Amino acid sequence: MQKSKAESLRVIPLGGCEEVGRNMTVFEYGKDIVILDMGIQFPEEDMPGVDYVIPNTEYLKGKEKNIKAVIFSHGHLDHIGAAHILLPKLGNPLIIGRPLTIEMIKRRQEEARRGSSKKLRINYIKDLKDKLTLGAFQISFFQIDHAIMDSVGTIIQVPPVTVVHPGDWTIERKPVGRKEIDYTHLAKLKRPTVLMLESLGAVNGELPVTEEEMVNNLQQLILNAPGRIIIATFSSQIQRVSQILEFASKINKKVAIDGHSMKLNVEIAKELGYIRSMKEVIIPIERIHEYPENKIIVVCTGGQGEEMAVLPRIATGNHRYIKVKKIDTIVFSSSIIPGNERAIQRLKDNLYRLSDNIIHGEVMDVHISGHSNIFDMEKIIKDIRPDYFMPVYANHFMLKEAAKIANKAGMTKNNIYIPDNGTITEFSSSGVKVLKEKVPTNYIFVDGLGVGDVGEVVLRDRQMLSNDGMFVIVAVVDRQTGRVRGSPDIISRGFVYLRESKDLLAQTRRRVIDIVDKAAIAGGAINWVYIKDEIRNKVGEFLHSKTQRRPMVLPVVIEV
Amino acid sequence: MQKSKAESLRVIPLGGCEEVGRNMTVFEYGKDIVILDMGIQFPEEDMPGVDYVIPNTEYLKGKEKNIKAVIFSHGHLDHIGAAHILLPKLGNPLIIGRPLTIEMIKRRQEEARRGSSKKLRINYIKDLKDKLTLGAFQISFFQIDHAIMDSVGTIIQVPPVTVVHPGDWTIERKPVGRKEIDYTHLAKLKRPTVLMLESLGAVNGELPVTEEEMVNNLQQLILNAPGRIIIATFSSQIQRVSQILEFASKINKKVAIDGHSMKLNVEIAKELGYIRSMKEVIIPIERIHEYPENKIIVVCTGGQGEEMAVLPRIATGNHRYIKVKKIDTIVFSSSIIPGNERAIQRLKDNLYRLSDNIIHGEVMDVHISGHSNIFDMEKIIKDIRPDYFMPVYANHFMLKEAAKIANKAGMTKNNIYIPDNGTITEFSSSGVKVLKEKVPTNYIFVDGLGVGDVGEVVLRDRQMLSNDGMFVIVAVVDRQTGRVRGSPDIISRGFVYLRESKDLLAQTRRRVIDIVDKAAIAGGAINWVYIKDEIRNKVGEFLHSKTQRRPMVLPVVIEV
Repeated sequence: MQKSKAESLRVIPLGGCEEVGRNMTVFEYGKDIVILDMGIQFPEEDMPGVDYVIPNTEYLKGKEKNIKAVIFSHGHLDHIGAAHILLPKLGNPLIIGRPLTIEMIKRRQEEARRGSSKKLRINYIKDLKDKLTLGAFQISFFQIDHAIMDSVGTIIQVPPVTVVHPGDWTIERKPVGRKEIDYTHLAKLKRPTVLMLESLGAVNGELPVTEEEMVNNLQQLILNAPGRIIIATFSSQIQRVSQILEFASKINKKVAIDGHSMKLNVEIAKELGYIRSMKEVIIPIERIHEYPENKIIVVCTGGQGEEMAVLPRIATGNHRYIKVKKIDTIVFSSSIIPGNERAIQRLKDNLYRLSDNIIHGEVMDVHISGHSNIFDMEKIIKDIRPDYFMPVYANHFMLKEAAKIANKAGMTKNNIYIPDNGTITEFSSSGVKVLKEKVPTNYIFVDGLGVGDVGEVVLRDRQMLSNDGMFVIVAVVDRQTGRVRGSPDIISRGFVYLRESKDLLAQTRRRVIDIVDKAAIAGGAINWVYIKDEIRNKVGEFLHSKTQRRPMVLPVVIEV
Repeated sequence: MQKSKAESLRVIPLGGCEEVGRNMTVFEYGKDIVILDMGIQFPEEDMPGVDYVIPNTEYLKGKEKNIKAVIFSHGHLDHIGAAHILLPKLGNPLIIGRPLTIEMIKRRQEEARRGSSKKLRINYIKDLKDKLTLGAFQISFFQIDHAIMDSVGTIIQVPPVTVVHPGDWTIERKPVGRKEIDYTHLAKLKRPTVLMLESLGAVNGELPVTEEEMVNNLQQLILNAPGRIIIATFSSQIQRVSQILEFASKINKKVAIDGHSMKLNVEIAKELGYIRSMKEVIIPIERIHEYPENKIIVVCTGGQGEEMAVLPRIATGNHRYIKVKKIDTIVFSSSIIPGNERAIQRLKDNLYRLSDNIIHGEVMDVHISGHSNIFDMEKIIKDIRPDYFMPVYANHFMLKEAAKIANKAGMTKNNIYIPDNGTITEFSSSGVKVLKEKVPTNYIFVDGLGVGDVGEVVLRDRQMLSNDGMFVIVAVVDRQTGRVRGSPDIISRGFVYLRESKDLLAQTRRRVIDIVDKAAIAGGAINWVYIKDEIRNKVGEFLHSKTQRRPMVLPVVIEV
């Protein structure tokens, strides 16, 4: 048993296989462990007040010293966002990534605890040809396309098997300044090979616009803008910012970068040499009024409708330096992240009132998604011709659709493995085995400073409170007589507008007094638990009969 | 002034022009009023606990006797859903609609108050050629396509102007069993004409599948299903249900209709003769086990992921008669209503685990939207050639895009009027005037039995409660000494898990006692307002410093 374990590679996704985000995968061979990504998941609508969700690392408890390294595929939060919490928890293992990715991890770490990034043990991927030996693991890399610079594909090799994992990926058609990506070289890796494939494109049957067209559209907009042009994009879209800067330099326009994360990322990119330091082009936002309006480009955050970001502040008139005019052009150079649909719609409504030139994906191609589509998925599978296929990093239904694509691309059903979060798949020289038991992968909620302390109970209470509010009744009861003294206090919020509900409150007080007094008349020792239950039930029923609402009723009985 | 008013038609949207839903438009000529639609809006994510939103009818207060009629364009809830509340409030005016629409209004009225539908004064549109004279208004109708049977376009004519209002509309390409719709006859109406156009298609640049293809796809799925086929669609999609029934009859399969609203609507449709009574085809859901599985079609509700509807119950194993098997086919013959994205994704994830044959819009065309697209909008404008164009029934940004389409279709900017909710546009022989003042159109929230009693304050409290919960502190203070008696009670929900936060609670209690005792030591009359404020602020700050959360802190101080 010990031996068989040592000879198989265990692949265990701790997240990212039943939802989008919270990406993290454990590779275990013998005692040695390598981890890929440590991402967060954004909260769903039934997780009120939760900041984000991180992977559960219970499986790694007691194995901290076996962790040879954590590799980060790229700098998006669903791949690095949990690092500042999980790295210290796992004994600060070595981290591996390309420079921009590592700098973004450092920054998040610093924001959480100043000075803490100094503790990081870092191995920069300086060249895509870098090779690392980590215990029994051989790690190497390959080029991929994604919406953030320094994204990288990873090859994880142990004696019995080679795993190919592009991370988040797409194939950019007609990329600007280089050749289209081809994956055929990965067909030559030592076999058997496992392709672990991010599968968000599995239900996307649309051919995207080429990068060339998209960049051209943006440039035409910038060139012809009759007034200022304000371009909102993801703060991690360094490449697009760079393209805008270079074009601005060519046509002699000025660029103001605005938004906390956007400014920080541009600084990082400058330090890394990914953006040229263009002193003649970049101006501070507070100086845009010193130039003619048709010479001004603003690149900013907020395209997802995030309340405190730049574009929503511009839309509501709360930006210090920009009041939108009819001739200004506003461009959403971004996609709609699921969950933000309504916030973006409201943002658009507000902006359309201010300007006649609002450009977004529904009216022009001014953004390319960083994710693939059905055709790309077919191509990568045919290019790599893996022995095993494991779709990951998407909702379950997309993983299933990805399996169908692999099937169509020539793979047999027996060689396709669809994992859940926590599924243990063992690859050995004798074949593949999916274990019956799974490792724990329940949600770990982060809320403020609390990691994992908000659980089902707290969330259920928040949902109840948000639906119908709460109703606290404080009754002071005379210890001697067992009767209510004075009139019970009522504190209610989120239930009804109290000033207009005086009758309802008076009737409720009357009922509480009756319940307590009745118990007192019954004589004997007073059963406070019973009385509280009675108040909770009777008042709950009464309020429901009058309003069809079910506030959380909380009785407080004080003996004096 | 009196005279000018009498000679102009005032068009006032009470809702539906800044959001989707809550559609209701007032037409006023002299004293006479005609209303089109009385719809609800579904709550946004910042309206927790709200059932739905209805239009504000303050403008009609005191004018009830002038209301000649309310016309209903079709039976969807965003057009009829507020009728059971607003009709009684407006003195039960005459209602006008085609039979299915009226029956749906009746049903909703009965569900609210049994027997109340008898009070309705009804004028059925028996024939599209029907013409009505209502005071100064001439009302007539025209055929349109939409996702529910008995949808109708309305022509509202007064001496100075003719309004053409298709309501919700599309143009079905290659409709099954009839000719494609053409609107050129509406170019011959008495001029000037105003086209009020539902504009949800203004950013939809995709050509839809034809009805023929869609029906053919569905039929092939039904014909070839290896096991049972479960088709979820909107309960109002009578036509699709009818198409499925007719096809089932032809190929000798049985159909079970499931879901409360679906069953009711099918009953109504049968009574109206819109669905043939097919005793040999329709079977009760509890009898599906009496037939071979590949002979069974289930038509049901729940395609939007609504927790208590049929398909989600099937997905979670909570349906009494259906446990899904791998060979069952499940079809989502419906679109995704904005706001339901995540619920539908979760539903799909669950169903993909149970069956290998899940069919939805992303993998096959099994539904056609009831709304138009950019091409349809261009066509209808060119067909009708209105003198004035007023885009309505969509978000503001879509109305703006609709104006661009009208522009492209040959209309000049001067003849395009984009209303907000509450905008008064006056059409008279001397031209068009948009008044500066607007009529009130703020949200009226319906929550349980309350109409309009939940306002901004209650909603803000619900949002606060849902984010970080609440924290009630009850301190009993000795009237004589001014000091706290015993230990303050704490009732908290939705904030932290109390059992694991004993330290935090003990420290909080200590702080409360300190605040009260300090006030007592200061001597003089005790200022309870000050003490409560102190507790609220100090405890709030303390909890925030420890948790980075801001629960609603509610101090209760009881003197004994």
